[in-house]
Amino acid sequence: MNILLTLAVIGGTGKEGKGLAYRWASAGYRVIIGSRTAEKAESAAADLNEMLGAEAVEGLSNFDAAEKADILVVSVPYSAHKSTLESIREAAQGKIVVDVTVPLVPPKVTKVQMPEAGSAAQEAQSILGENVSVVSAFQNISHEHLFSDRTIDCDVLVTGKGKDARLEVLKLVKAAGMRGWDAGVIENSMVVEGLTSLLIYMNKQYGSKSAGVRITGLKQGKK
Amino acid sequence: MNILLTLAVIGGTGKEGKGLAYRWASAGYRVIIGSRTAEKAESAAADLNEMLGAEAVEGLSNFDAAEKADILVVSVPYSAHKSTLESIREAAQGKIVVDVTVPLVPPKVTKVQMPEAGSAAQEAQSILGENVSVVSAFQNISHEHLFSDRTIDCDVLVTGKGKDARLEVLKLVKAAGMRGWDAGVIENSMVVEGLTSLLIYMNKQYGSKSAGVRITGLKQGKK
Repeated sequence: MNILLTLAVIGGTGKEGKGLAYRWASAGYRVIIGSRTAEKAESAAADLNEMLGAEAVEGLSNFDAAEKADILVVSVPYSAHKSTLESIREAAQGKIVVDVTVPLVPPKVTKVQMPEAGSAAQEAQSILGENVSVVSAFQNISHEHLFSDRTIDCDVLVTGKGKDARLEVLKLVKAAGMRGWDAGVIENSMVVEGLTSLLIYMNKQYGSKSAGVRITGLKQGKK
Repeated sequence: MNILLTLAVIGGTGKEGKGLAYRWASAGYRVIIGSRTAEKAESAAADLNEMLGAEAVEGLSNFDAAEKADILVVSVPYSAHKSTLESIREAAQGKIVVDVTVPLVPPKVTKVQMPEAGSAAQEAQSILGENVSVVSAFQNISHEHLFSDRTIDCDVLVTGKGKDARLEVLKLVKAAGMRGWDAGVIENSMVVEGLTSLLIYMNKQYGSKSAGVRITGLKQGKK
């Protein structure tokens, strides 16, 4: 693990982003929570530091967080996806941006409805430009599991621009205590984003809150 | 299980279709193999009857097979998808059509590339019309497993038009010895079809031939 990397979780005051920030800070990463206002980010960072018993997390505005970090993680409701990405575009140049966003369209969140670009990740790539490596991951992980120490019975499928960037994000998956798989090019992100709608539907149908997915038939070591 | 149902496997001379036909015939269903020519269908049926040690499978032209059966299963290469559906359209009216087709676009089969309609299943629905219930299933099952008696370590996600039709297809999944899940509306099929490209990619990356997917966190009984 590269312990010198700094991660910014843009939209890190939401449940999913805050949970990921918690796990990475626990694993020794320097983590910055970003939010639209620095005050909200500082408040979320203070919560996490209390949980962690250490001053491990900092809170800044989204732009400042993005500028200061090596890898950016975007975890925002889909309605804020475009505007958030535009607001950090300059700060993101040359970096890896991990897009956690699921393009749910309420009220029909159990029906797959992809944006024009094909997926949220492709939309992000188009907004941020070719000098950024957008990698998509973590869309199928329920935030409810992130603050517990129990094993998360769900794999993380990592898709995105460039194999090196995907491998870097696979390190973050492992650091967060999950099992990840390199699942190919950014066009494959629509499957992983869309799968969230199927999991929400199945949760409702089968009376659960924790549907997840595991890949079978593969061994982690083999590459 | 409704033992009086007759299943037609359109394109049943291919590996996937033939494997499914084998499993259903083993489970006691009346199965008809359909092919572009009756001769090829008869030959595949004869193979299966020899394996089964019984005269359980019949071979007919695609149209005759479709006309004689209660439920149609379409398992053809994507290049033959549209023309095959058009050729059975009249015979399919009022029936359930299970679409197994994966819209792979060679040579880039590890990259998700959905058709204009959104997915192969939606394309099928559009060709067959509103009087047919298109249900999509089995796209992630490797044909190599179908002729063995070993447990298939891969779930079947069932999406499609109408909950009753999906439940009917879930019975076929169970009869074929697999675990199935109702995964919602036909628009969700793109995820399941596309997942096949991710599994092919992961097989290559991780040195396997049998990547599959399992749903976690749900119980079958609860509905």
